[in-house]
Amino acid sequence: MSLIVQKYGGSSVADAEGVKRVARRIVQTKQAGHDVCVVVSAMGDSTDDLIDLANKVSPAPPARELDMLLTAGERISMAVLAMAIADLGMEARSFTGSQAGVITDADHGKARILDVTPGRITQALEAGHIAIVAGFQGVSQTTKDITTLGRGGSDTTAAALAAALRADVCEIYTDVDGVFTADPRILPSARKLDVVSCEEMLDLAASGSKILHLRCVEYARRYGIPLHVRSSWSKHPGTFIVDNPYDEGSGMEAPIITGIAHDVSEAKITVVGVPDEKGKAADIFTAVADAGISIDMIVQNVSVAATGLTDISFTLPQSDGPKAIQVLQAVKTTIGFADMLYDDKIGKMSVIGAGMRTNPGISAKLFRAMADADINIEMISTSEIRVSVVTRADQLEAAVRAAHTAFGLDSTEGEAIVYGGTGR
Amino acid sequence: MSLIVQKYGGSSVADAEGVKRVARRIVQTKQAGHDVCVVVSAMGDSTDDLIDLANKVSPAPPARELDMLLTAGERISMAVLAMAIADLGMEARSFTGSQAGVITDADHGKARILDVTPGRITQALEAGHIAIVAGFQGVSQTTKDITTLGRGGSDTTAAALAAALRADVCEIYTDVDGVFTADPRILPSARKLDVVSCEEMLDLAASGSKILHLRCVEYARRYGIPLHVRSSWSKHPGTFIVDNPYDEGSGMEAPIITGIAHDVSEAKITVVGVPDEKGKAADIFTAVADAGISIDMIVQNVSVAATGLTDISFTLPQSDGPKAIQVLQAVKTTIGFADMLYDDKIGKMSVIGAGMRTNPGISAKLFRAMADADINIEMISTSEIRVSVVTRADQLEAAVRAAHTAFGLDSTEGEAIVYGGTGR
Repeated sequence: MSLIVQKYGGSSVADAEGVKRVARRIVQTKQAGHDVCVVVSAMGDSTDDLIDLANKVSPAPPARELDMLLTAGERISMAVLAMAIADLGMEARSFTGSQAGVITDADHGKARILDVTPGRITQALEAGHIAIVAGFQGVSQTTKDITTLGRGGSDTTAAALAAALRADVCEIYTDVDGVFTADPRILPSARKLDVVSCEEMLDLAASGSKILHLRCVEYARRYGIPLHVRSSWSKHPGTFIVDNPYDEGSGMEAPIITGIAHDVSEAKITVVGVPDEKGKAADIFTAVADAGISIDMIVQNVSVAATGLTDISFTLPQSDGPKAIQVLQAVKTTIGFADMLYDDKIGKMSVIGAGMRTNPGISAKLFRAMADADINIEMISTSEIRVSVVTRADQLEAAVRAAHTAFGLDSTEGEAIVYGGTGR
Repeated sequence: MSLIVQKYGGSSVADAEGVKRVARRIVQTKQAGHDVCVVVSAMGDSTDDLIDLANKVSPAPPARELDMLLTAGERISMAVLAMAIADLGMEARSFTGSQAGVITDADHGKARILDVTPGRITQALEAGHIAIVAGFQGVSQTTKDITTLGRGGSDTTAAALAAALRADVCEIYTDVDGVFTADPRILPSARKLDVVSCEEMLDLAASGSKILHLRCVEYARRYGIPLHVRSSWSKHPGTFIVDNPYDEGSGMEAPIITGIAHDVSEAKITVVGVPDEKGKAADIFTAVADAGISIDMIVQNVSVAATGLTDISFTLPQSDGPKAIQVLQAVKTTIGFADMLYDDKIGKMSVIGAGMRTNPGISAKLFRAMADADINIEMISTSEIRVSVVTRADQLEAAVRAAHTAFGLDSTEGEAIVYGGTGR
C-alpha cells in the first residue's frame, strides 16, 4: 500500500459534475488499496469572481483581507468534494490549510511555506479516511493570520504535503495530458513528454510554462518526491518529473531540447541615461528589490563614451509595473538618470534542455531560426540549460512555432499515432 | 467611550452597495468615539446558494462538511466588509469564529457556544482597529472541527461576544425598525415596541418571531447585556430588550399583551391508539428525544374508557418530521400503538405579554376572538406569559389579525404619526 497525494485544479472541479467525476477518480484510487490525500483548488473561476467582488468595494483591498476572502474558494470546493466522496460511500474529511498544518510567512498574497505539520491529516489517513486539503492557503507563523501562496499555489501545497507525509508520488491533475514540448493550445504539433528532469521543469516553470508552479517543483526536488502531471479526463500516464532521469544506467539520454515555454505576462522597463558610474546599477536594482519586486532579465547597453551615459533594461511581472515606476521615480534625482520607458507589449520565449550543456551552437541555431522567420530579438538571456529571448508580443507565437520546428520537436505522424493510442 | 457590538444580517450586506452602506455606518460609530466589534452574516442568499451546491453532489451531505461549506459565506462577507471599511480610511481586521474564540460543542448544524475567548478581538480593539467577526460559526472544543450554530446563529454570536467583551450594548441591525406587536409584513397596523422584557422576547422568539434568535436573548439576559434591535436603513431608535423594564421605580407598567408571534414551520404528528398504560407517553417522547428532535406542544386526548386507548398529538419542526416518523415506526410494535398521522399544514399563533400573569381572562378573550372570526383551534398551550394556539395554516394570518384587534394592539392614527417621526 502506498500513499498518494493528488492535486486537482480549478478546471477539474469547475461545477458539480466535475466534482463528482473527480470524486469517482479519488474513490477508485482508494479502492485500489492506496491511502489518498487530495489537494484541491477553488472551483472554476470562483477566485476571479471573489476578486471582482473585492474590487467592487475597494480599488486596493488590504492584502490580509484579500487572503481571508480568497481562501473561501477552496473551503467551498474541498467541502463539496468531501460530500461527493461521502455520497459514494467513502469517508472523507476536509481540512483548511491552517488545519492541515501549512505554516507560512506573513507575506500576504505570495506567502512561502515555512513548515508543514500535518498531524490531523495523518490521523485522518490512519483512520482510513480520505483527507481533502485546501490548496493555495496557509496560516502565518507569526501573526496567525490566513495567508495565500499566490496563483498556482495549490501545486506547492500538494508537493509540500507529499514531502511532509513522505508520500510515494504526488499526482498533479490538470486538463491536458502532461508536459508538452510547447503549449499545445498554440502549437498543435507539440509532443507530450514522458519524463522531464526537475532541473528542466524548474526552467520551464520559471519561463512561463503554466503547467506547474515553480515552488512545487523546488519542493519535490528538495524532498525527492516524484511528480506525475496527468489529465483528470483520461487514464493515460502523463509526464513524470523526477530528479535525475538521465543518470548513467537509466538508459535515458538527455534530450538536447526538452521544450519551449512562452510568457506574455512580463513588461520591460528601460532606464535611460544612467551615469556610467560604479554602483548606479546597484542603486536601481536595490530600489526595485526593496519594493518586493522580482526582476527577470537584465540588459545593460554599452556606454557611449562621449556621453558617459548608459541605458539599462529589465523585465518584470506586468502586475509589478506601476509599483516599479513609482519607486524609480522616487530615486530618479538621487541616481541621476534621465528617463524611464515602460513597455508591456513584449513576449518571452525560452528554449530548455538538459542536453544543451554538452551541445554547442544552440543559441546560434535559435537566432538563425528567428532571423529566417523575420522575428526581431530585443533581449537575450542564457543559463546552462536555457536560452530566453524577448520579442514583440504579437510575434511570440510565430517565434515558438519557428523554434519548435528548428529543433525538431514537431510530432511526426508515427509518433502522433502512438501517442493518440489508436494502435494503428 | 463605550464598546458597542453591532450585528448586521445578510439582507443588510446583500451586495457590494449594501456592504459599503454598512461600512459607513460602522465608521460613523467609530468616529463618534466608540470601540466597535461587528458580527456579520453571509451576504444575501449566499447560504442558500451554498446549500443548493451541496445538494447537487449529495442528497444528504455529512454535517461536518456542510458546516465547513456554509462557513465560507461569512468568510466572504466579513473580508469584504473589512475592505470597505479600509477604503473609508479606517483599520479593520476580520476574524473567523475560530479566530475570535467562539468555542462550541461538536453538534454540527446546531452547535451550542460553550465559551468565548476573544483574545484576538481584544487585541484588535486595543490597537484601535474595528474588529469584524464571522457570525453563525465556531470551532468544536473536542474535535477542533468547524461548526455552525444554526439559522439565526449570528445573533447569538453577537450576544455571546458582547458578554465576553463586556460590551455596553449589543445592536442587532435588521431590515425592519425593531420588534413589532405582530409581523408588519402581514399586519400593516402592527406597532413598533420601544421596550420589551427579555422574558417576553424569549417567548416571542420561541413562538416563531424571526426577529431575534432565541439563544441570543438567553445570552443577553444571563449576562445582563442590553440588546437594541434596529434598522440598518435609518437612524431611528429601535426596540430595547432589557431584563426588567417593568421593575418598580422604572415607571413602566407591564403591558397586558406585548405582541403576537406566528409560525408556519411546524408540523403535527398524531400517534393514534396508544394503550393507556403508565409509561407509554414517556416511551414515545424518549424515542423522539433520543433522535435529537425537540418537540413543542403536546396534547393527549382523554382516554376512551371502553377501548383503553388514547391519542397523543405533538408539534415539531417540519424539518425533523421525516426523522420522527422513522424513529416512531421503529418502536411502533414495542409501544403497541395503532397508527401515525402527519400534518404539515398547521400554523401556530402565540399571544405574549408579561402583564398576562396578573390579568385573568386572556385565554377566554382569545378563544372568543377566534370563534368570532370562524377560526378553529386545534391545539392549545399556555405558560405564565403566553397563550399559543394551533390552527390550519391558511387561517393563521386571519387569526393574527383577529387577535391583534381584540387585544387593542392596532396602531391608532396618532400613534402612527408619532412613530413615523413627522412631528405633527
